Amino acid sequence: MPQGDMPRRSWVAAANDPECDFPIENLPFGVFSTGSDAPRCGVAIGDMIVDLAACEARGLLSAEGTFAAPRLNDFIALGRPVWDEVRARLTELLAEGGDETLPLVAMADATLHLPVRVTEFTDFYASKNHAFNVGALFRGPENALPPQWTHMPIGYNGRASSVVVSGTDIHRPMGQVKGESGPEWTACRRLDLELELGAVVGMDSTMGERVSVAEAERMIFGYVLLNDWSARDIQAWEYQPLGPFQSKALGTTISPWIVTQAALEPFRSEGAPREVPLLPYLQEERPGFYDMTMGWTMNGQPMGETNYNVMYYSSAQQLAHHTGSGCPMRVGDLLGSGTISGPAPEQTGALLEMTEGGKKPVTVNGEERVFIQDGDEVGLYAHAQGDGYRIGFGPCTGTILPARD
Amino acid sequence: MPQGDMPRRSWVAAANDPECDFPIENLPFGVFSTGSDAPRCGVAIGDMIVDLAACEARGLLSAEGTFAAPRLNDFIALGRPVWDEVRARLTELLAEGGDETLPLVAMADATLHLPVRVTEFTDFYASKNHAFNVGALFRGPENALPPQWTHMPIGYNGRASSVVVSGTDIHRPMGQVKGESGPEWTACRRLDLELELGAVVGMDSTMGERVSVAEAERMIFGYVLLNDWSARDIQAWEYQPLGPFQSKALGTTISPWIVTQAALEPFRSEGAPREVPLLPYLQEERPGFYDMTMGWTMNGQPMGETNYNVMYYSSAQQLAHHTGSGCPMRVGDLLGSGTISGPAPEQTGALLEMTEGGKKPVTVNGEERVFIQDGDEVGLYAHAQGDGYRIGFGPCTGTILPARD
Repeated sequence: MPQGDMPRRSWVAAANDPECDFPIENLPFGVFSTGSDAPRCGVAIGDMIVDLAACEARGLLSAEGTFAAPRLNDFIALGRPVWDEVRARLTELLAEGGDETLPLVAMADATLHLPVRVTEFTDFYASKNHAFNVGALFRGPENALPPQWTHMPIGYNGRASSVVVSGTDIHRPMGQVKGESGPEWTACRRLDLELELGAVVGMDSTMGERVSVAEAERMIFGYVLLNDWSARDIQAWEYQPLGPFQSKALGTTISPWIVTQAALEPFRSEGAPREVPLLPYLQEERPGFYDMTMGWTMNGQPMGETNYNVMYYSSAQQLAHHTGSGCPMRVGDLLGSGTISGPAPEQTGALLEMTEGGKKPVTVNGEERVFIQDGDEVGLYAHAQGDGYRIGFGPCTGTILPARD
Repeated sequence: MPQGDMPRRSWVAAANDPECDFPIENLPFGVFSTGSDAPRCGVAIGDMIVDLAACEARGLLSAEGTFAAPRLNDFIALGRPVWDEVRARLTELLAEGGDETLPLVAMADATLHLPVRVTEFTDFYASKNHAFNVGALFRGPENALPPQWTHMPIGYNGRASSVVVSGTDIHRPMGQVKGESGPEWTACRRLDLELELGAVVGMDSTMGERVSVAEAERMIFGYVLLNDWSARDIQAWEYQPLGPFQSKALGTTISPWIVTQAALEPFRSEGAPREVPLLPYLQEERPGFYDMTMGWTMNGQPMGETNYNVMYYSSAQQLAHHTGSGCPMRVGDLLGSGTISGPAPEQTGALLEMTEGGKKPVTVNGEERVFIQDGDEVGLYAHAQGDGYRIGFGPCTGTILPARD
């Protein structure tokens, strides 16, 4: 828990509840609509949303008209000085004694949309517990951890077109799997979640020029919760030698709110201890993790819970590595942290690990589960605990519908 | 060689040369600019470019103003009936006796740009010769061909932001490789090309709904040459278990001209013989390959040459598989065929295969090569031979510049 002043208070009463995800210290960005109005940008405060487009129209904020867009990309592209200025101004306007005429919308009356148009999506593999557990199930314990794992952040390009916002139903995927007498085309039988944190890239980089870890950190706009739905049977059959493909393309659910780096800064933390020294291009001047509880629920029941600071590579290290070959990054790129798992089964971020590959069922509201069944709702949550307040993301949920072929 | 009428003749004289890549039967689409004018859409004919935006402004063509954009995505999104109508109208205007006042620009005076904003890029692995050769070098001959290879098109998501147009210089990438005493950060020592055909997706599909092979074929707007530059030493160290990542993100070069399906239709061909029956979702009603010579040069010297019809999976099969999980596809998605290699060394589409993993040097203009050196220029070409004409793509070149860290 960071040391510091007493929590600030807002004239939006719900924001002062110490269990509210959206106190005045948070101010996450999203996209919302009400009734038949067009989607536009907003900031969450307590149980309300600040209508940023209306604020700019009234001259209270300045962002070159970007808040009227149905995505945050244009605002984000204005750069860090504008992000900071808008945050500072909103803190002033929302504090007790601020501007109580600010245009607010009740969150209960709003529809939340995908906050950014996801330019490209990359998924990493940065929890050693997860990498070992899953590696052992796919390849046996002796080959579980790939030899380069402690030397660099392993990642793969995912599919951006299937990233959806919390609340979007997901169809169980069809796919090709290895059957007893040969390949079969079937509805997935081993459907899983993955508890992750997603970093939203806020600045372009130049093709042919890599960025340092420190520069990479400054390129990150903020973070979302990210559930990388995974079809384990399809994955097992397809993933060698070119990596996961259709097993990860059924859908990736993100939270509607992007929590900024600024809001998480007081919770900066060391990650997992380094086992071997990193090459200089991956070394960080300061720890790049956050002390933040992260967990998931199934049909409302708490399942796994851990902390983001179990991770071995930070988003900034992942981003720096991503540019290593000269690969250009763009505003709206989304980097998944990899599944976040602690060492114990109740700390894992995927059913594959929690049930030891489907061998040890878990109980959900009195029913047995090894993998996700049709109708199951999976939710993610995260919060960083301050002194009298907490920084949260709100819900990130998805319900699985039956397969259709 | 397809049976048919004598070649058509155009009033653009160069288009009637039987060795010209751009006869009136071709009419590929691209994006060009002249002087300080903004990039706009065009069609190649002989040694000239039809200025489509100017044609529409004069009422000669109709495409809702999309030709004035600096990319073809908006035009392509209008759909197949519009593609066909524009092609038919241009054939009429460019034929002998057509409209010799058509606004043309000399190709020699034009700059050619990336023809589409690449939405997402997927690369496949559909030549059995290549899959076997490379698999044997990475994993030994007994593990060369993955067990699912003959049952489905294996692919991975690549990086769209590093796709560039022919003529763009590429820096040799830096990367992490396995050194003798541990991991090293180094300039790539085993830089390679990959000769591929790229399919440009011309229609969106719906999330959660797969498309059939026949539907997938109708979703493809056309094809480009595609050089998937590959850093083999970076690839070897990084690619297990999640697939190639930074080894493929240094750059992917495509031709400036998109050759339409309509132009290639007379060359439709069987591919490699099926070794096992495919599952129904991958079966095609008619062969989806083209009888088309494809090859590559280094510093102007012809190196490998083969035919697209050696491939085992067509672009339509790859696209159908890609949607199998419910993954939505979008206009501007680019699907690489995978490296196109025939069985003999002189038919291979990558130096890794041609030199047997760097063990047997080849001679290029009197100099030895095992991999690409700084300053080397690699070019791709393809043409389908008709009766008195040929359908080509023009050049697809890139020069390697020294690494910079």
